[in-house]
Amino acid sequence: MKSFSIKDLLQESPLGEKVEVNGWVKTFRSNRFIALNDGSTLRNIQCVVDFEQFDEQLLKQINTGAALKTSGTLVESQGRGQDVEIQVEDIFVHGTAHPEEYPIQPKKHSLEFLREKAHLRVRTNTFSAVMRVRSALAFAIHSYFQQHGFYYMHTPIITGSDAEGAGEMFRVTTMDPENPPKDEKGHIDYSKDFFGKETNLTVSGQLEAETYAMGLGKVYTFGPTFRAENSNTSRHLAEFWMIEPEMAFYELKENMDLAEDFVKWITRYVLDNCTEDLQFLEKRLLDEEKSKPQHQRSEMPLVEKLQFVVNNEFKRITYTEAIDILKNSKPNKKKKFEYPIEEWGADLQSEHERFLVEKYFKSPVILYDYPAKIKAFYMRLNDDEKTVRAMDVLFPGIGEIIGGSQREERLEVLQQKIKEFNIDEKELWWYLDLRRFGTAVHSGFGLGFERMVQFVTGMGNIRDVIPYPRTPQNAEF
Amino acid sequence: MKSFSIKDLLQESPLGEKVEVNGWVKTFRSNRFIALNDGSTLRNIQCVVDFEQFDEQLLKQINTGAALKTSGTLVESQGRGQDVEIQVEDIFVHGTAHPEEYPIQPKKHSLEFLREKAHLRVRTNTFSAVMRVRSALAFAIHSYFQQHGFYYMHTPIITGSDAEGAGEMFRVTTMDPENPPKDEKGHIDYSKDFFGKETNLTVSGQLEAETYAMGLGKVYTFGPTFRAENSNTSRHLAEFWMIEPEMAFYELKENMDLAEDFVKWITRYVLDNCTEDLQFLEKRLLDEEKSKPQHQRSEMPLVEKLQFVVNNEFKRITYTEAIDILKNSKPNKKKKFEYPIEEWGADLQSEHERFLVEKYFKSPVILYDYPAKIKAFYMRLNDDEKTVRAMDVLFPGIGEIIGGSQREERLEVLQQKIKEFNIDEKELWWYLDLRRFGTAVHSGFGLGFERMVQFVTGMGNIRDVIPYPRTPQNAEF
Repeated sequence: MKSFSIKDLLQESPLGEKVEVNGWVKTFRSNRFIALNDGSTLRNIQCVVDFEQFDEQLLKQINTGAALKTSGTLVESQGRGQDVEIQVEDIFVHGTAHPEEYPIQPKKHSLEFLREKAHLRVRTNTFSAVMRVRSALAFAIHSYFQQHGFYYMHTPIITGSDAEGAGEMFRVTTMDPENPPKDEKGHIDYSKDFFGKETNLTVSGQLEAETYAMGLGKVYTFGPTFRAENSNTSRHLAEFWMIEPEMAFYELKENMDLAEDFVKWITRYVLDNCTEDLQFLEKRLLDEEKSKPQHQRSEMPLVEKLQFVVNNEFKRITYTEAIDILKNSKPNKKKKFEYPIEEWGADLQSEHERFLVEKYFKSPVILYDYPAKIKAFYMRLNDDEKTVRAMDVLFPGIGEIIGGSQREERLEVLQQKIKEFNIDEKELWWYLDLRRFGTAVHSGFGLGFERMVQFVTGMGNIRDVIPYPRTPQNAEF
Repeated sequence: MKSFSIKDLLQESPLGEKVEVNGWVKTFRSNRFIALNDGSTLRNIQCVVDFEQFDEQLLKQINTGAALKTSGTLVESQGRGQDVEIQVEDIFVHGTAHPEEYPIQPKKHSLEFLREKAHLRVRTNTFSAVMRVRSALAFAIHSYFQQHGFYYMHTPIITGSDAEGAGEMFRVTTMDPENPPKDEKGHIDYSKDFFGKETNLTVSGQLEAETYAMGLGKVYTFGPTFRAENSNTSRHLAEFWMIEPEMAFYELKENMDLAEDFVKWITRYVLDNCTEDLQFLEKRLLDEEKSKPQHQRSEMPLVEKLQFVVNNEFKRITYTEAIDILKNSKPNKKKKFEYPIEEWGADLQSEHERFLVEKYFKSPVILYDYPAKIKAFYMRLNDDEKTVRAMDVLFPGIGEIIGGSQREERLEVLQQKIKEFNIDEKELWWYLDLRRFGTAVHSGFGLGFERMVQFVTGMGNIRDVIPYPRTPQNAEF
């Protein structure tokens, strides 16, 4: 007798054959119909039990959450809702789940409640769907880059460099905190720490990715990054995954082309490979939004929104054009923006980005050529000496999903920038070496993985798209 | 005019067409022949310059390491060593590399020297080959699991749990080390730290992977793990990448089958997709070993060794059988082992594993059913109550490359084990929940990624198979 995953069983559908499946009980109706799920797919297999043939004690153990092995003949289903079902001949109970103790009962649980049960929530339809889509999206990312001539590289997680400048960092140490080694002045002596210096968790692999792009041509990272920021919002995690491609010989235009092609490709991959899960998540979102006022609901159902992204060109405008649009916009004139746009040079806030994407263009937007002063030190200065070749990709409902730039390849200009940003040049000796030896035009960008998972699954809170979210005051599990 | 990567150019070979390539100068011979490489492939493109047509000042800038854009007509090569070459019409120098300052000159550099130049070493043939193979191997791993019904999951990097028990941990903190918050007793008050408790870098994602296997069925992790051990050896890193599949409803036998099929599949993928790089690395290894005494050289050339692994069944024996073989072995009787094997229960050392793999069986070996006392608390106890369903896959030259087990699924037995191992049960409440609600037989294993990269590339030092190695006293870059 062949053992199947439920996904394979439903796909191969070997009618008339004896089959075996393992899984967890979703529901058990009328002492007769077991809906069994093994996580391989959203769908359950219906296992039909002739209760007169089974011991009552055994049947009593078949509760929601119990793990079973069942075997029997696969037949066409007489009932509605499924094409096939198993006429059960044998049941083995791997493990029970007491109905008064097992928290995941067949009723609606709030996302907040399930966050407290993060070790069990993947057994619900919502979270199993989200996590299957997350897995497919990750593979799509690898597949895209591998098919397009990029090499995957692992940049260091523990970094001795604090010049990345993307945010607050976590310190990594093996020193005894009760009694740390001190130098003669009474300060902490980091030379006695594990790495012989102060070390932190990385906030970005970009600088190291640049070193590899300048040898392998096109590389990408896909790894965890960290921010020690006390942001308790639905958009922030202290630990999240980031994808950072970096390409030698790419100018900003090619960087934008790549970013657009890339997000469309991975979105299409998920549309093609996660149809059932997306349909379920679309329905979930519609249900969730029913209780919201009209203006807070999504403009399009989930799948339509993803198809829209795949099928339409992203609107590209310069920062300067965006400022003009915003300055003359209704909400600006009517003082509806929390941060009114008064002049060129202002940093754009989420409300401005959302206006451009959701109201003005009704399309994903790529903003580029930002003022140098509001962007990072490594971005390529334009000939106007006021703007840098930065770009942000803005998505409806999410805001900035990609941030990137052409990198400053000229040694003297970069050194000047480092000085202006008050960074210690010695910290970046190796980064500057890239401009000393065989420097060239190059570009790259970063995609926040969880933001992208949110976008394709329609989940509103970033804590619901990663297995074990890390946030201030929370590192459970 | 079309711009090509060198890999694509050599593959498509559009003879007679005008083409453009970017890359770095490997060598410039006779003021005429530029060997240009862009990292897309090991091979260079020969760019032929008619020096009378170019400015002398320009030609002087064409040194090893300089970044160029060249364009011209692709023609069949008259010389030996390449099929095609570019008759250069235009050269643009992106960036120079002063021959007296640029450290990567066209001569033999020691691996030790290059470790100090980790930001430039990927521009050498050896490291670009290693890193391309590393990238292919990573993709092979994802491809295998995705094709076999596994879902990729990200387990947390920062963990509040210290019960994983796999080794010394790094602490993660945002407390001011000069002046940390203290409680009334004068001890560090971790409740005031970022996560409200003491947190560390993960040593393994296994326990969290189990929670997902018990909902999604088959999952795998691929992420960084950490050991704060003061091991300055060629086999240890403080930060390394690990792959950990975990499967519901798998017994030890199926776990071993999976491990064997998996490593064969990914090895075959590299053989099929990295032929040139492997041939280069094989030659490199032969050169390196020339200076070694015969008995220290590899038994087989690199590619043959990989084919051997792919084409032969791994030998499977129990720990008990291994002890019998070792007790009666020549080196044991002649007291050649540093740790003589005297009785059942002894922990196997690297010398014993190597004897079994390299001398006795001359094949990869899977050892299983180890004494419970020398293995982790979560491993499934056999009915003999002396052994657990653990397995280690041992490879020639590397030793243990995979370690895994069937997991203890019985609540009472696991609780008893936790007590015996002096672990605080409260730390593992969520892990024990898996045995309370719908528990089932399940299994998994861990593969050290860098060890596998070492195996397929033949590199002897683990620091040479990861871009930026983290070791005691070393977190540069």
